[in-house]
Amino acid sequence: MSWSAPEIPSVSNELAAALAVSIDQKTKPLGSLGRLETLALQIGVIQNTLRPELRAPAILVFAGDHGLAVEGVSPYPQDVTAQMVLNFLRGGAAISVFARQHRLALHVIDAGVASSALFDATDPARAVGTHFHIGWRVRGGTHNSLVESAMTQRELNSALCAGEQIVENLHSGGTNVALLGEMGIGNTSAAALLMSSLLDEPVANCVGRGAGHDDAGLSKKVSILARVQARHASTLAQAQEHERALLALKCFGGYEIAMMVGAILRAAALRMVIVNDGFITTAAVAVAAEIDRNVLAYVVSAHESAESAHARWLKSLGLVPLLSLGLRLGEGSGAALAWPLLQSAVGFLNEMATFASAGVSEA
Amino acid sequence: MSWSAPEIPSVSNELAAALAVSIDQKTKPLGSLGRLETLALQIGVIQNTLRPELRAPAILVFAGDHGLAVEGVSPYPQDVTAQMVLNFLRGGAAISVFARQHRLALHVIDAGVASSALFDATDPARAVGTHFHIGWRVRGGTHNSLVESAMTQRELNSALCAGEQIVENLHSGGTNVALLGEMGIGNTSAAALLMSSLLDEPVANCVGRGAGHDDAGLSKKVSILARVQARHASTLAQAQEHERALLALKCFGGYEIAMMVGAILRAAALRMVIVNDGFITTAAVAVAAEIDRNVLAYVVSAHESAESAHARWLKSLGLVPLLSLGLRLGEGSGAALAWPLLQSAVGFLNEMATFASAGVSEA
Repeated sequence: MSWSAPEIPSVSNELAAALAVSIDQKTKPLGSLGRLETLALQIGVIQNTLRPELRAPAILVFAGDHGLAVEGVSPYPQDVTAQMVLNFLRGGAAISVFARQHRLALHVIDAGVASSALFDATDPARAVGTHFHIGWRVRGGTHNSLVESAMTQRELNSALCAGEQIVENLHSGGTNVALLGEMGIGNTSAAALLMSSLLDEPVANCVGRGAGHDDAGLSKKVSILARVQARHASTLAQAQEHERALLALKCFGGYEIAMMVGAILRAAALRMVIVNDGFITTAAVAVAAEIDRNVLAYVVSAHESAESAHARWLKSLGLVPLLSLGLRLGEGSGAALAWPLLQSAVGFLNEMATFASAGVSEA
Repeated sequence: MSWSAPEIPSVSNELAAALAVSIDQKTKPLGSLGRLETLALQIGVIQNTLRPELRAPAILVFAGDHGLAVEGVSPYPQDVTAQMVLNFLRGGAAISVFARQHRLALHVIDAGVASSALFDATDPARAVGTHFHIGWRVRGGTHNSLVESAMTQRELNSALCAGEQIVENLHSGGTNVALLGEMGIGNTSAAALLMSSLLDEPVANCVGRGAGHDDAGLSKKVSILARVQARHASTLAQAQEHERALLALKCFGGYEIAMMVGAILRAAALRMVIVNDGFITTAAVAVAAEIDRNVLAYVVSAHESAESAHARWLKSLGLVPLLSLGLRLGEGSGAALAWPLLQSAVGFLNEMATFASAGVSEA
């Protein structure tokens, strides 16, 4: 199975200028809607129109397990990935609540959950508006990256294709906004390893407390990750610049991150709005951006998480977060909480009166 | 007409502890919903329940004019206050768009608009969900505070009582959340004078660009405000500590700020959630807090505006903003944009599964 990245259109500077004029004619002091104005402009250029519309928004929560979890990088047992997937499906998780509140379709994708036996007892209590995609799973958890590559080339390609196809299907159904989310015990480790590799920063600067490490747990996590890096250092050093991001993804995992990379690239190719969430989804955005820098024009940064390295990573990508609420949950929770701000941005652009139409005097 | 402040209940520490336990049992790492968790706890203690509900939320936009506007403290002509009120009513303003988006009832109150002749032509194009209160207006704009007190004692009392009554009426109709907003050319000047007086800070530190001053406009504004302060300095110096905030309000105005002070105090007395907006509504919160410190427990700080002094004022009141989007519009726009976060906070508290109920393993 081979894979090649889709082509992503660049956005129009002329249209950006026209959108800025339209925004400045609204009945408000110039620039007084702050970050909402840059957001409205971004959504306009993504959709290549002066009157953008947000249609059938979908949260995609990619769930996958990590072979590295066996080394104790997370304070939670690996079964929690599958348990939380069931919680998403039954409507009891934070993302379930926020999706319901905002009438966002919640798509949960099994990218490679280890304890998938838990899914066998077909659950009668599926929450309204929640969809479970089980056909795309690569394998019940990645390989242990301390010992070998987290995934084979074939598994990587398979995950990238799956992410693309999932987005393609949603787009065919009318969706033009994809909100990113994930679940996977151990996936802050994979994301930290990717950050360290992509930004060439010491891994200790890329590691946070994840789902809640104490000092001892944090220091153990850093030392394990340093060993994982050492294991793959020569492989990565030998790679050519343009192959390095995908190779790092193959070495460190996980399947859910790889599927998101495919999803992000395809969404941008289809001119969809992509709403980024926290530290782990940012890893996917960062890998996608290494493959094609154009992707960043399509990414709205929902929030800056409490995970210490996240703010720095967003900044290095030129992404300005909408929210800073000290979240560190994942699941797409930050993306869902930021969602109404996207609606507000499009709303003011399409619905506000102009100084001329409302007969309001200008300064 | 005399006025005395309503009694405001203090909130329960025992209930706060019980709410914290309830929040920690939800299926998420401890503290991982960040600011939403403190918000859920605050709403719980305000309503004095483990299962808070937000009912019939209303945005109250108090509009009033300022006699000081004649001195050129704003780049906009005074007619803009009335023109914008019409824009609110017809559904074309930013706050109209955001209220519609979130199904918030929009109440526009004429607290003392100068060009109210513009309202005479009864407007057939009233937007759905929008209410105009014209019975409470004090006078067509405050007196010029450079020459005399912005309002008489009778006018001040009248505005305070009106604010209380407006909230009382909404509460009788089932509303338990009041979102604050305002409109009034020149009202950043009144707010800056109040901040300077209440915090005992030089007025230059309390003045921002308002609706869009250039450097020359800003420096002119500062020099006018310094003269207004000098005009009232001895009056304020002679006042007793406990009278000083209301006296400053009487000296500097405006009617819309005074009505908000009454509204805030009554809302807190009724255990309503009060959502603060920007620099001018914060002036009302600050005056109310000088009258009764208990009021602050009932105030949710929606956002930190781009108006330079606003962040400092919020901090001095111990209020932590939910959003920081570079807004400087007023109208209640920041309060409306933060509103879905209140729903999310109450939503996760009431609807999320616990580790026990969902069968999810703990750390």
